[in-house]
Amino acid sequence: MINKLVEKIKKTNAPIVVGLDPMMKFIPDYIKSKAFAEFGETLEGAAEAIWQYNKGLVDAICDLIPAVKPQIAMYEQFGIPGLVAFKKTVDYCKSKGLVVIGDVKRGDIGSTSEAYAVGHLGKVQVGSNSFYGFDEDFVTINPYMGADSVLPFVKVCKEEKKGLFILVKTSNPSSGDFQDRLIDGKPLYEHVGEKVAEWGAEHMGDSYSYIGAVVGATYPEQGKILRKVMPKSFILVPGYGAQGGKGADLVHFFDKDGLGAIVNSSRGIIAAYQQEKYASYGDTGYADAARAAVLDMREDIAGALGK
Amino acid sequence: MINKLVEKIKKTNAPIVVGLDPMMKFIPDYIKSKAFAEFGETLEGAAEAIWQYNKGLVDAICDLIPAVKPQIAMYEQFGIPGLVAFKKTVDYCKSKGLVVIGDVKRGDIGSTSEAYAVGHLGKVQVGSNSFYGFDEDFVTINPYMGADSVLPFVKVCKEEKKGLFILVKTSNPSSGDFQDRLIDGKPLYEHVGEKVAEWGAEHMGDSYSYIGAVVGATYPEQGKILRKVMPKSFILVPGYGAQGGKGADLVHFFDKDGLGAIVNSSRGIIAAYQQEKYASYGDTGYADAARAAVLDMREDIAGALGK
Repeated sequence: MINKLVEKIKKTNAPIVVGLDPMMKFIPDYIKSKAFAEFGETLEGAAEAIWQYNKGLVDAICDLIPAVKPQIAMYEQFGIPGLVAFKKTVDYCKSKGLVVIGDVKRGDIGSTSEAYAVGHLGKVQVGSNSFYGFDEDFVTINPYMGADSVLPFVKVCKEEKKGLFILVKTSNPSSGDFQDRLIDGKPLYEHVGEKVAEWGAEHMGDSYSYIGAVVGATYPEQGKILRKVMPKSFILVPGYGAQGGKGADLVHFFDKDGLGAIVNSSRGIIAAYQQEKYASYGDTGYADAARAAVLDMREDIAGALGK
Repeated sequence: MINKLVEKIKKTNAPIVVGLDPMMKFIPDYIKSKAFAEFGETLEGAAEAIWQYNKGLVDAICDLIPAVKPQIAMYEQFGIPGLVAFKKTVDYCKSKGLVVIGDVKRGDIGSTSEAYAVGHLGKVQVGSNSFYGFDEDFVTINPYMGADSVLPFVKVCKEEKKGLFILVKTSNPSSGDFQDRLIDGKPLYEHVGEKVAEWGAEHMGDSYSYIGAVVGATYPEQGKILRKVMPKSFILVPGYGAQGGKGADLVHFFDKDGLGAIVNSSRGIIAAYQQEKYASYGDTGYADAARAAVLDMREDIAGALGK
């Protein structure tokens, strides 16, 4: 799957992943009204609005981008109906040829991590049959519990030819509370990065490992260091756009050939129509506004990379 | 909810939480056969088997214990039908008066943590209505991303009178990979413990805070230190039984009055009938075997606490 991701990035010339994080306030009123008319102002109504909104976005941008990253929390908050919409979104994106990164940030001890890995990337056994649960292509995971929480995911990735992005240095303001604390003269995130590099070296695709890392665009200096610490790891970079990261901040996350990283934008794309810059699209043009925002983001990154 | 938990522990004289972590290999064949006859060897069939198995367990032990801790990964691996079984289990346990600790180990940046908090503990807004998603009483969360990943959960707990257990020192063998690394002369878990104590002091129930911590029974020395670092935090202690923790290891997790901690056992209770000690119950007696195992665990802990 890492090879497919790299190929699609080359083909689209867009190291961009669009975060499908559908907050209700992003969804145009006409979509919500229609969904509520059919299902009421219920969890099912919210789930239908999310699904229709996502479908419109995906149809409008799927030829421009290599990947999407649905944030499961935004679905999980609507309980079971929300998770049904998550699964429909994953399946639809895959049917459109997109690589799907499930932003799930799971992590637990051995047998429990195994269950998460099976549920999100692999197949679960029921009697003599086996079934995919959510079936994303990549997932994000949390390393706090150490190697035996990570390795069950690695095992399933190897079997299924899928991949991981492990949290190393996250984009949020208080990521430093623990991640920046110095251990033997180096911050914790660097120690985690070294582990990611070690796991990654043993699990290579053609040019990059399928064990990648998450490093926030909001921390470009740390990105520069981590790029060197993890030379074979693909880096998923959140924090561009709404969180403050800019094209110029991204340069050091990439290798010299302009590969090695993929930059996420969520609300900057999916709610572009709510920005002044794209307001002329109106709410019925939300998907076209998203397309325009993807094109602008592609240009911003290409400019920064001197391409 | 922390007050309810403390009250129920006093009443049952059992600082015990039973982990409802239904692996397929724990479920008696007669339950699986019946479920598969009705729904086939499908995800729905697995979910039905899990639900019937849980229901039998809960009916047999609900008068003896204050709380249950369903591990969501064990349900999530069966996709949507699995999560439906999780929700049914949460609701059923609450209807029996049990405190439900959702072992979900979520954690993300600000608005995303808010979505998880709303989905598991609070209410989500849909138009002019609001709905509970999964509606557990407590959840476990992961602190790696720092304060702004934790505080949205704290906010919802305050509104809903619910609570948290934050991962501090986990019970797995490689928890030390990052948690034990020294920062300013103290291990990372102690720094996390200090933060938990700080958040906890501002969010008190009657005698304990509703911001608790997870510290593994497999690390009694660390438990002793963390008990002092977090004097007002309730400690959720996994790792008893199958993972190797013993009654005598638990003493230092408790306060002098025998409160302040709640010990989890999962397979040691729910799959007791598969142990030689309880084999005479047979598979149709799996729930009675679980009851016997709870009574033995209560005695083991009471003995260790000198009660």
